[in-house]
Amino acid sequence: MLESHPRPITLDRDLLLRCIDECVDCGSACTSCADADLGEPDVGEMVRCVRLCLDCADTCDATRRIVIRQTEPDLGVVRAVIEACAVTCRACGDECEKHAAHHEHCRLCVEVCRRCEQACRDLAATIR
Amino acid sequence: MLESHPRPITLDRDLLLRCIDECVDCGSACTSCADADLGEPDVGEMVRCVRLCLDCADTCDATRRIVIRQTEPDLGVVRAVIEACAVTCRACGDECEKHAAHHEHCRLCVEVCRRCEQACRDLAATIR
Amino acid sequence: MLESHPRPITLDRDLLLRCIDECVDCGSACTSCADADLGEPDVGEMVRCVRLCLDCADTCDATRRIVIRQTEPDLGVVRAVIEACAVTCRACGDECEKHAAHHEHCRLCVEVCRRCEQACRDLAATIR
Amino acid sequence: MLESHPRPITLDRDLLLRCIDECVDCGSACTSCADADLGEPDVGEMVRCVRLCLDCADTCDATRRIVIRQTEPDLGVVRAVIEACAVTCRACGDECEKHAAHHEHCRLCVEVCRRCEQACRDLAATIR
Repeated sequence: MLESHPRPITLDRDLLLRCIDECVDCGSACTSCADADLGEPDVGEMVRCVRLCLDCADTCDATRRIVIRQTEPDLGVVRAVIEACAVTCRACGDECEKHAAHHEHCRLCVEVCRRCEQACRDLAATIR
Repeated sequence: MLESHPRPITLDRDLLLRCIDECVDCGSACTSCADADLGEPDVGEMVRCVRLCLDCADTCDATRRIVIRQTEPDLGVVRAVIEACAVTCRACGDECEKHAAHHEHCRLCVEVCRRCEQACRDLAATIR
Repeated sequence: MLESHPRPITLDRDLLLRCIDECVDCGSACTSCADADLGEPDVGEMVRCVRLCLDCADTCDATRRIVIRQTEPDLGVVRAVIEACAVTCRACGDECEKHAAHHEHCRLCVEVCRRCEQACRDLAATIR
Repeated sequence: MLESHPRPITLDRDLLLRCIDECVDCGSACTSCADADLGEPDVGEMVRCVRLCLDCADTCDATRRIVIRQTEPDLGVVRAVIEACAVTCRACGDECEKHAAHHEHCRLCVEVCRRCEQACRDLAATIR
């Protein structure tokens, strides 16, 4: 879609596309991981993981929409939002990592959170 | 992620995965198309398109989350939501189609909306 | 805000405002109830309640945005979305009702879900 | 609802409640202002305002959900998200202010954005 956008892309194209893609994946992965946690027999041990996955899904979904938009961006807004997204992905990935050995969905979610955190940080680093 | 979910999938696996994938694509495509419309010189002609793309993005994003979840689903809720999503994709696709000849992002958005509408209808047809 | 909108309101004003208000309340109440369920010592008994509250929060938040918008609405979309919202509020309210005797947040959530369901049904009944 | 939550509130109660309330109002006000902009005869002049209102609605809606949740919060996440929300409210309020003299919905939106920005900053200042 971005190829057909009438306005020029103001940020680094590759880093922007990677940030969009990772937010897409992380928003869905965290929604799925929170739900899988709820379905586990040891749900009582997974409460913090559910909580942080819900926060991460909300943050990634909002960030995805904001970085998709190319018309009249405010770069201060874009930077603040992707930096907050990186913080959320870090916290969620750290929590999922504690459960990665016994829950495969957490192991997969860690990978997605780490990639999204990095993509957000890489894009944020270009906005100064 | 769904492979590692502790609960069994209650719906047809292939149709469910397709519905999730299409909601992912359509939520992002409609966010991008609404934004591209805003960036067009003829934005005054694109107002209805922006409006319906925003509605479609909101509906697809909510539907995506609900169909991703596999723990303790209420199938009446799932059916109602994917049927509403199909109605929204139809209306958005019909509006984008009017602009497809002169705006490539609208042409692409039509395709995504049609696929998402079909995926929602196909999945809904299995819930009776 | 609606007083200052440049376009006329196409639906019954009082029913529309009530639907917006109830979606605002229900989206927040369900987010809070899902989170309170997670904090309960008997979280294992609350899994279905968390699930349906998350679905209801997503549906109410999307519905709220769509009914707030007054520019170029597609009434078929509005009707489909508020009908799906009513179905979701019904299912969520029914589940919360099972826990209302021992969890005050569920008792409050039932009330909000019932009001939102009714407001959506009343508005939908005017769109034929 | 928060009165009946099983977990203690970790942040200042009054500032937290104000932040939740302001995010509720600002998410809806910005959705409405973006839509009202689209309905104006001078929509071509309002493109940046639509864009920033959409960003602000997305940020406020995500922030509202995160600050509503009281179970197992990560305070670093809460702080990052409300700080990003304050930045977005500031940018959106500044843009709406340019149109406040001729569009009443923008004038109202400025007020809501300023209050939400302040509520986010006040709450963030308590998390160190």
